[in-house]
Amino acid sequence: VRDSSNSSNSIQALFRDPKRTAKPRLTGITHVLDKGLSVAEIEGLLEVAAGYIDIIKLGWGTAVVVENLAAKLAVCQERGIDLCCGGSLFEVAFLRNKVDEYVAFLKDHGFRLIEISDGCIEIPLPDKLRYVERLSKDFRVLSEVGSKDAKVVAAPYRWVAEIKDELRAGAWKVVTEGRESGTVGLYRDSGEIRTGLIEEIEHEIDASNLIFEAPQKAQQVWFVKHFGCNVNLGNIAPPEVISVETIRQGLRADTIGARTD
Amino acid sequence: VRDSSNSSNSIQALFRDPKRTAKPRLTGITHVLDKGLSVAEIEGLLEVAAGYIDIIKLGWGTAVVVENLAAKLAVCQERGIDLCCGGSLFEVAFLRNKVDEYVAFLKDHGFRLIEISDGCIEIPLPDKLRYVERLSKDFRVLSEVGSKDAKVVAAPYRWVAEIKDELRAGAWKVVTEGRESGTVGLYRDSGEIRTGLIEEIEHEIDASNLIFEAPQKAQQVWFVKHFGCNVNLGNIAPPEVISVETIRQGLRADTIGARTD
Amino acid sequence: VRDSSNSSNSIQALFRDPKRTAKPRLTGITHVLDKGLSVAEIEGLLEVAAGYIDIIKLGWGTAVVVENLAAKLAVCQERGIDLCCGGSLFEVAFLRNKVDEYVAFLKDHGFRLIEISDGCIEIPLPDKLRYVERLSKDFRVLSEVGSKDAKVVAAPYRWVAEIKDELRAGAWKVVTEGRESGTVGLYRDSGEIRTGLIEEIEHEIDASNLIFEAPQKAQQVWFVKHFGCNVNLGNIAPPEVISVETIRQGLRADTIGARTD
Repeated sequence: VRDSSNSSNSIQALFRDPKRTAKPRLTGITHVLDKGLSVAEIEGLLEVAAGYIDIIKLGWGTAVVVENLAAKLAVCQERGIDLCCGGSLFEVAFLRNKVDEYVAFLKDHGFRLIEISDGCIEIPLPDKLRYVERLSKDFRVLSEVGSKDAKVVAAPYRWVAEIKDELRAGAWKVVTEGRESGTVGLYRDSGEIRTGLIEEIEHEIDASNLIFEAPQKAQQVWFVKHFGCNVNLGNIAPPEVISVETIRQGLRADTIGARTD
Repeated sequence: VRDSSNSSNSIQALFRDPKRTAKPRLTGITHVLDKGLSVAEIEGLLEVAAGYIDIIKLGWGTAVVVENLAAKLAVCQERGIDLCCGGSLFEVAFLRNKVDEYVAFLKDHGFRLIEISDGCIEIPLPDKLRYVERLSKDFRVLSEVGSKDAKVVAAPYRWVAEIKDELRAGAWKVVTEGRESGTVGLYRDSGEIRTGLIEEIEHEIDASNLIFEAPQKAQQVWFVKHFGCNVNLGNIAPPEVISVETIRQGLRADTIGARTD
Repeated sequence: VRDSSNSSNSIQALFRDPKRTAKPRLTGITHVLDKGLSVAEIEGLLEVAAGYIDIIKLGWGTAVVVENLAAKLAVCQERGIDLCCGGSLFEVAFLRNKVDEYVAFLKDHGFRLIEISDGCIEIPLPDKLRYVERLSKDFRVLSEVGSKDAKVVAAPYRWVAEIKDELRAGAWKVVTEGRESGTVGLYRDSGEIRTGLIEEIEHEIDASNLIFEAPQKAQQVWFVKHFGCNVNLGNIAPPEVISVETIRQGLRADTIGARTD
């Protein structure tokens, strides 16, 4: 086993994209969906890709059932990776009148991010905005816009209005819905991108304030080609983090030769 | 690294579903499909989800080719997880006139479950029933009903009759076919559920005697909504075990707010 | 934990396919696609399946961005697994006039394989053949035929001519394109196999000179049934290596009872 770190640096020097942002990032965020990783899997992911992972989301209510939560929090906090519980867990807490207990749990465990969404259940927008405002004092708030139900399709102007309201209320970034599957919210059932919707959003809101959930490869390619290599992408599956990074840096067929700045 | 097990318990206390059964389970079984995991992957899976995994199946004939079989058996037996070889391996043994040698192998390695199926090849039902009867003296028998060939669609009354015969012959549970893909047996090519078939089965047989193979998320959601949180589900992919548990416990969008008891 | 290696051998002895080749292989090659594995994942893969893995490809330009390249090379070289960078990285180097630097990097790191392709960008065939010829002095060359763009469909006679030219120029094997997805090159958008194309290729070229990229299970089954258990298969996802081996050896439903020699 010889140390080839110098040469390994040199291939990076040869081919990496100098426009790509570095951590801590405000743009070019990769937000990863954890649906039950072991500590060893998280350590493996960080061995391979720590520089490319900004946020790990413990998807929906998985934080309640995983049996290694404390160890997982410890390893991420040690490595400076921001963790976040899924917005659905906030919605469960809201539905059961347990938001205060949920927030206490997050504080007690050192979470610095909270996701506030209304994709599962109806929460009146004024209520949601009050939570965004109140919780943005103690957390960086990710608020999420868009339904998790494929049958619910909101008009673009409503997306725009809600995103603006939530940013004004104090959200750090607004997450636009795609789910784990990439078949709702920003997308049609087939995974096809609602490009008209995105263009309307983009017309009124700086994309650096948004994290686009984009789990499918074709979706990731589209966003990188459309917004450049430092677009914020969410719900990236752990095995896809390196692929996403190559798409950003023009190192996968779909963006080789494409302008991504 | 601080010990946050108490607080971690508290989020479980807040949100977990008290109706969910605990191990050792007769209902609410999650049966996981291993198609070649390493020992570290099995240990990771148990770190995350030991309380939710009742059976690990070494899919089809993978037990013959994996190079870590002994170590895998050891770790599962140590951790009290029941292992089972796939029914296809029984069929290979039947086809090659090696059932006795196969059974000797299972006993010698401490398997307590055996799966008996006829999804790959034709085995006359009386022969299959004789195996179920004979082997149920030494093993808990999982017998499987349904073809692995999408072109073979049996009428519901034949499913019902065969399931009844196999339970009568001594099967511990009957597994209803879906394969790794969820596109045969209980399902159409597209993954759509044959709900009429399931309703006919349910009309005559207590669902606690069945393990429904349900690898796709929409299928898992349907079964939990239809039969409640403690339905027995099979062929769950290892990375989906926690997701399935959140679906059971009303912690994922698809069942938040749904009655699952 | 008892040592059950003898009995474990016996189930292999009972059921494994004696026609299956062993390493080092010229035919029956399984070529695995790594899109960012950790060292522990590679070690796990080798624990389970070292005997079945002939080549690991660091897909497209992932070698540039993974943060564990040196450690990954070390573990593979120690275990005698041949590593290869994706052809897309050669194309990036060609596009940026850095082929010499790229080749120096490969030599410096002990790579013994190089993949030369033109699936992302246009490279005049004479140029590609000159690279094949020149680089085959220092490397075993995998040249790749077929576009990564689903809209580019070349006529079979052109595939045949290019494969012949590249073998004549010194390619060790020619890889026929399928990508990670199995939806281009040899395949239609839907993943369906262009069987007419393959039959034309097969009519003129010995299949032992080819590695068929076949990431989807139905594709793997088709190739094994068509060419036998020792067909060379490429772009196999790491979790599918054992499944592919069972398909080869008649231990999965799709090939149980089928002649695969």
